Amino acid sequence: MPIDLRFDADEAALLTDLYELTMAASYFAIGLNGPATFSLSVRRLPPRRGYLVAAGLERLLEALEEFRFAPGAIDYLASLKLFAPEFLDYLAALRFTGEVVAMPEGTIFFEEEPILEVHAPLIEAQLIETLVINQIGLASLVASKAARSYHAGRGRRLIDFGLRRSHGADAGLVAARASYLAGFAGTSNVLAGRRYAIPLYGTMAHSYIMAHETESAAFGHFVALFPQLSTLLVDTYDTIRGVENAAKTALELRAKGFKLQAVRLDSGDLLDLSVRTRRILDHQGLNDVAIFASGNLDEYRIDELLRAGAPIDAFGVGAAMVVSADAPALDISYKLAEYDGVGRLKTSAGKLTLPGRKQVFRAVNQNGGFFSDRIGLAEETAASVAREFRPAPHSIAPLLERRFQAGRRVEPRPTLAESRERFLADFARLDLRHKDLERPERYTVRHTTALAAMLTAEKLRAEKRQG
Amino acid sequence: MPIDLRFDADEAALLTDLYELTMAASYFAIGLNGPATFSLSVRRLPPRRGYLVAAGLERLLEALEEFRFAPGAIDYLASLKLFAPEFLDYLAALRFTGEVVAMPEGTIFFEEEPILEVHAPLIEAQLIETLVINQIGLASLVASKAARSYHAGRGRRLIDFGLRRSHGADAGLVAARASYLAGFAGTSNVLAGRRYAIPLYGTMAHSYIMAHETESAAFGHFVALFPQLSTLLVDTYDTIRGVENAAKTALELRAKGFKLQAVRLDSGDLLDLSVRTRRILDHQGLNDVAIFASGNLDEYRIDELLRAGAPIDAFGVGAAMVVSADAPALDISYKLAEYDGVGRLKTSAGKLTLPGRKQVFRAVNQNGGFFSDRIGLAEETAASVAREFRPAPHSIAPLLERRFQAGRRVEPRPTLAESRERFLADFARLDLRHKDLERPERYTVRHTTALAAMLTAEKLRAEKRQG
Repeated sequence: MPIDLRFDADEAALLTDLYELTMAASYFAIGLNGPATFSLSVRRLPPRRGYLVAAGLERLLEALEEFRFAPGAIDYLASLKLFAPEFLDYLAALRFTGEVVAMPEGTIFFEEEPILEVHAPLIEAQLIETLVINQIGLASLVASKAARSYHAGRGRRLIDFGLRRSHGADAGLVAARASYLAGFAGTSNVLAGRRYAIPLYGTMAHSYIMAHETESAAFGHFVALFPQLSTLLVDTYDTIRGVENAAKTALELRAKGFKLQAVRLDSGDLLDLSVRTRRILDHQGLNDVAIFASGNLDEYRIDELLRAGAPIDAFGVGAAMVVSADAPALDISYKLAEYDGVGRLKTSAGKLTLPGRKQVFRAVNQNGGFFSDRIGLAEETAASVAREFRPAPHSIAPLLERRFQAGRRVEPRPTLAESRERFLADFARLDLRHKDLERPERYTVRHTTALAAMLTAEKLRAEKRQG
Repeated sequence: MPIDLRFDADEAALLTDLYELTMAASYFAIGLNGPATFSLSVRRLPPRRGYLVAAGLERLLEALEEFRFAPGAIDYLASLKLFAPEFLDYLAALRFTGEVVAMPEGTIFFEEEPILEVHAPLIEAQLIETLVINQIGLASLVASKAARSYHAGRGRRLIDFGLRRSHGADAGLVAARASYLAGFAGTSNVLAGRRYAIPLYGTMAHSYIMAHETESAAFGHFVALFPQLSTLLVDTYDTIRGVENAAKTALELRAKGFKLQAVRLDSGDLLDLSVRTRRILDHQGLNDVAIFASGNLDEYRIDELLRAGAPIDAFGVGAAMVVSADAPALDISYKLAEYDGVGRLKTSAGKLTLPGRKQVFRAVNQNGGFFSDRIGLAEETAASVAREFRPAPHSIAPLLERRFQAGRRVEPRPTLAESRERFLADFARLDLRHKDLERPERYTVRHTTALAAMLTAEKLRAEKRQG
């Protein structure tokens, strides 16, 4: 099938930057392959974001289980005439043997917080860099964007309609999965429905109406085949006349014992049209026919419509959500934090990184609400960091969990439905003031005393590394 | 390999929206499957864009050659309990038998212009909608963005460094291919190098420097293994001291008969740092060591740096290009333009479409420069539309070519290198005033008299379709 859209078994490990391989070749040549820790975090939240949602972990871990350079990949690398035969033999036998600790999917997180750490021999940890950033970055970006629509939707049903505008085939799958994780009710993406058991939704396109001689004939034909699940698209020509035609179809359907699910508005002034549509439907006793809206929607528009009282029951959200239009890239990085037992950091202008193996501690108040986080060292515990919080929290939870060890995912592996529940629970515990769509209040994240001390010590040490 | 990143043979046809399948089921049930024409175009250019670059066609056509619902896909669709067995049998036997006319990859195009038209039985043409938009949309979006950096770069070498920030695996491949098409010199994406024979480039990451006890040791180890192609990253700690260390390494390398390729600046004030770096290198007689810059670069930043005289020889361009950060989605649509020999259009608010089978005619002046386009009907010819242009053009070229017929691509199929040449030639023929990064002048695109007449007639007919 679509050959160029497909990843063959001998290709996926090549989905990396060339420098990962040249660095690995150098490490191999000089025997620099001690235990390393790399840490993945978002340096700064995108504009207007008060929180992010971790996603993409299970797909990544599945890829790590299967990570290998197949013979075809080795042949290609040999053809580049960059690498010694011994190194290529080494690559051919390489498997990912490291450990991954990470925030489970659906966890709310903030800037600077490590969401994933890899502990592995340096070469292995380096070679997976591009894949880790690419996959976790995109999934978390889209889950975070989708959560904003979920919030703006105030319980209305939201459907991912973004496949056509997502950035390629893989992004369409990631977006369907990430938006479902972040509270959407389903997707139009059939392959995502199959892979992830996400509920599928669909209506009809304008072309369906246009291919028929009349709009009424189109409506009639559709409900004849799908009497139980029809949503009729009413804006191909004049929208109000389209609603009137849909109402007729609904009444005919009712006479046969079925119910029209909804009419769909996809253009124009959605507030005005939804009010008029509701009135027409109700006037005909069609109070049970829902109004579905779509067309360039995002969290801002959904919020605006619902604040204004638009009687819309469900939203199809497409491009703006799947490409995270107001912030299409995340400032996410995967940085060496420790090598051979010693903390590492870089001191480049504006890009200071945090050394050491770390943990994130989240303090929770009496009501279960999140009130503040501390980034600390992995050896610290909830008990030992308790004194860093004022006032004393009700409880403290470490967020990074061991998820991969000895070449396999740690069981039990959460299902997507479980991760979605986790998100919904976490999200309810995050105060409203961090969820404002325009000017969210900054959530408090600090370094523990122990991490701060290590940072100071390692900065001094870093200066000496320029000899 | 990365199982969830891979498309199996039985999956790719499912990369579609559910409604494509429910509409197809309805068409099948009522026997509505006459000849249809769908037209793909961009409704409005994104902000600050004066032109777009067509890309993604060859990948799409390859997918159409292989388009089929494999047994696993049919099983999944059956499990949804939406479709009759006869329809599923029909799908299992379905192949894409239609015709595709399209602008070749690398063609410059403008708003409203059809860049691709599909002529096929209605069901086939409908079922490929999501795939067509997803693939051509992304590739054209990224090629158009990359062309802006190519323009701003004034001949400097540009390398795609975006894989980690691209939206998933497929997008990384599309971006590498589309940016190379649009004038980039190469990519860091190894899989793209393999699939598309794009030149590969790579330097080193900060982690490479950090894993060593000293920066100098890191530099020394790297050039020892790759004496002919090293670019040293100098900003892990203090940048200027990093440049001094790199200069030492370069001199040692020169003593052994090799040349350091470049130093790479990845943070800080790139103008100031590049000037100081050039001075340090030149002072040591290292005039042949290039300066490579990266770090949040896009066309605006490149333009600003080069206008200010920054002595930068090459740029690594990442996130902003691969996600088309200032315009991450294209307002592209695939609309029914003709069914059963009769023009179709929709009249939704602000979304009027153009009926009929079409052609785009480009008028060229004496010097080969593009001066104006006409969107016309397919039956019109360069000769017949000549009178629509004032002043009379030197020549007129139709832009849509038949590229797919009878289930196969039409030969000869252009190579990526040929498409790149086409882009470079086309781009040189587009006047500078349309290339301004901030306020490009609008290129003139009009409808031919024949298309305008059809549009008027079909608008009247469309009103009757609401019965």
